[in-house]
Amino acid sequence: MNEAAAFQALTVETLPARLGSVEALASRIGADSSRWKVAEVGDGNLNLVFIVTGEKAAAIVKQALPYVRLVGESWPLPLKRSFFEYHALTRQAARAGAGSVPEIFHFDKGQSLIVMEYLTPHVILRRALIDGRMLPNIAADLGLFMARTLFRGSDLSMTARARKEDLALFADNVELCDITENLVFTDPYYEATLNRHTSPQLDALVAELRADRDLKVEAQKLKHMFAANAETLVHGDLHSGSIMVTDGDTRVIDPEFAFYGPMAFDVGMLLANFWMSFFSQSGHEANGERETMRAYLLGVVVETWAVFRAEFSHLWRTERTGMLYDRRLFEDRGDPLGSEQALDRVLHAIWVDMLGFAGVEVHRRILGLAHNADFETIADENVRATCEAKALKFGRHICVNRHRIHGLDEINLLAVRIEKGTVS
Amino acid sequence: MNEAAAFQALTVETLPARLGSVEALASRIGADSSRWKVAEVGDGNLNLVFIVTGEKAAAIVKQALPYVRLVGESWPLPLKRSFFEYHALTRQAARAGAGSVPEIFHFDKGQSLIVMEYLTPHVILRRALIDGRMLPNIAADLGLFMARTLFRGSDLSMTARARKEDLALFADNVELCDITENLVFTDPYYEATLNRHTSPQLDALVAELRADRDLKVEAQKLKHMFAANAETLVHGDLHSGSIMVTDGDTRVIDPEFAFYGPMAFDVGMLLANFWMSFFSQSGHEANGERETMRAYLLGVVVETWAVFRAEFSHLWRTERTGMLYDRRLFEDRGDPLGSEQALDRVLHAIWVDMLGFAGVEVHRRILGLAHNADFETIADENVRATCEAKALKFGRHICVNRHRIHGLDEINLLAVRIEKGTVS
Repeated sequence: MNEAAAFQALTVETLPARLGSVEALASRIGADSSRWKVAEVGDGNLNLVFIVTGEKAAAIVKQALPYVRLVGESWPLPLKRSFFEYHALTRQAARAGAGSVPEIFHFDKGQSLIVMEYLTPHVILRRALIDGRMLPNIAADLGLFMARTLFRGSDLSMTARARKEDLALFADNVELCDITENLVFTDPYYEATLNRHTSPQLDALVAELRADRDLKVEAQKLKHMFAANAETLVHGDLHSGSIMVTDGDTRVIDPEFAFYGPMAFDVGMLLANFWMSFFSQSGHEANGERETMRAYLLGVVVETWAVFRAEFSHLWRTERTGMLYDRRLFEDRGDPLGSEQALDRVLHAIWVDMLGFAGVEVHRRILGLAHNADFETIADENVRATCEAKALKFGRHICVNRHRIHGLDEINLLAVRIEKGTVS
Repeated sequence: MNEAAAFQALTVETLPARLGSVEALASRIGADSSRWKVAEVGDGNLNLVFIVTGEKAAAIVKQALPYVRLVGESWPLPLKRSFFEYHALTRQAARAGAGSVPEIFHFDKGQSLIVMEYLTPHVILRRALIDGRMLPNIAADLGLFMARTLFRGSDLSMTARARKEDLALFADNVELCDITENLVFTDPYYEATLNRHTSPQLDALVAELRADRDLKVEAQKLKHMFAANAETLVHGDLHSGSIMVTDGDTRVIDPEFAFYGPMAFDVGMLLANFWMSFFSQSGHEANGERETMRAYLLGVVVETWAVFRAEFSHLWRTERTGMLYDRRLFEDRGDPLGSEQALDRVLHAIWVDMLGFAGVEVHRRILGLAHNADFETIADENVRATCEAKALKFGRHICVNRHRIHGLDEINLLAVRIEKGTVS
């Protein structure tokens, strides 16, 4: 395909003819494109996603559209997000290992399409958690993924020049950052037109949160950090809908929101989605049979954070080749404890900010435009509202009190108490 | 001059022929370039600076060299720093007023030269302070300059797209940032080859500081912030040698280190240079006649910070048009106190970080490569070392204790006590 050709959205019908000559695809799935079977399976908010099955195998073709798919042409969104997704995927594969993301077979910038590995029998993690499945590896896999991508994309590891060149490249991903800036950090905290919430059940609580000065100031401080603190290449949308799993495999997908931002953002968004899953479980059970699942989810939070900390610390001690926390000031002059003190401080800063980002993520999923299936699939609105109210209060607490919270024991205990109704 | 021509350094002899046809210069100083008088006056570390005097007037021609002038061709430095200086000057003029920086007459990117206003009878502020001159306007002028440039170059004022485009442009100023990252934040805290200090007088104290774990961790945390927190366009080298003054006029010059960094950096560097001037005064007096000058300098610190705060607060209330601390969450829904609470928090963060940057700036001027004339012009090495030792201890205190210091009264009192020797 000619990269200079004008953009044209693929369809199930046109795909074989248009991509039949792409060697990277044909050699993998089967050269006879007339026998390809194509299904459009995009269930996200933004893009077209096709499964293309040939005689030998299948692959995914993901194509951006010049607008937000969920909303339509009235909300334009640039095609270049595909370019950022491609570059983020290659960096994540290099930093966290090829098996942490889908393999890329082909990228066509002009047509904004990526041909990549078809993950099977993987399912979306969010869906698995709604179904009550306890995945054994997600905490370890995702803790490692975050530690490796966030450490290795920062001045702790890269040369200053390499990071700044990459920072400049991703600075152009302004429209997708703008979505996060508005939909995550701002809209949920006032009566924005795109918002919705379970009404009238949550009306009073929502009004209370939107009048909560401490919460709003904190959320805006976090937005300030999100926009200004360009310390590493973050995934930018690392929730349980951006992760595909089997019992043995975990893959992080859809990094089109990637940009240079704060390390704590990915961590906070991910843990928030585990906590939301926790609070949503009672909407998916009849007789308390999700108790084990709830315990599992709090355990996943603890383990994800522990693995993240351990791996980040390991990389700090063994791979700190960038300009920050220069070894010549510490290890090289016989002061390894100085380096440990600095590490402790860096991890503490991530911890404090992670709690804030987690709180905001919980709020925007219940008060804003983009809700999540954990709550949305609870048919009974009263039950759903009860789950959502608990999550909202939990989110408010960890966001506003983030500087005063010392560990996950404290937070998970709070989650249990809110869930049981012993605190409100 | 053809912009595509290969770079060639100007000389006193070649300048008239090479720039005679630059209309913006000729029309200002006099068209007959054969009658121009040219003097090379560069006393900085990096560039060529010429005063060109024609029949009508004079102008400054500043040209970058492909290496560090102070060191020679063994330390290459890219010519593009002139491009960043030009762009920083235009932004500062737009944001802080044309009278805050020299007027630019002409910029030649290929030859890396800027033709600009000749400031007369201005002198370098550092020189004036060494001479014991009490400039009446510097605190007000510099407080306003910082508040206006730092506020208006951030997401508090700009659109996200405009700031990110500018961020990407200045991200290429990587070599000059690298100088700061090494010479300010790292080298002073270990035995780097480029370092020097007054020896043997300061040897014991220098060894103590380089073994001071809390100090080193703090300095590295500040470096992390310097490199990662891209919240606004900073001058990047705002010390008293980058300011030209008369009693009635204050101009900020030489912004070639400009990049998107933390607001507190410029403020901290400037105040540090006032404090260093304070501690150096006893090296320039015979019988305590600089007592008034010392009181003046502490007053300048207080007033600069007060004006900065007041103007920043004014802009917050009247010009907060960017995406941060959105008015729809506060003022627009009848919660102006929420906005004030957020302002207080932003100013407090600048305060805390400013103290850290100030402490580091003091250290690097005494322990690192680039010393300053305040101390260097004290001929008696014992006297100089006594002044420097006081400044070093002061710098250590404000850097390490920055989260626990509540106001300038406390700091200035400490400065007075260290100066008098009542605390050490």
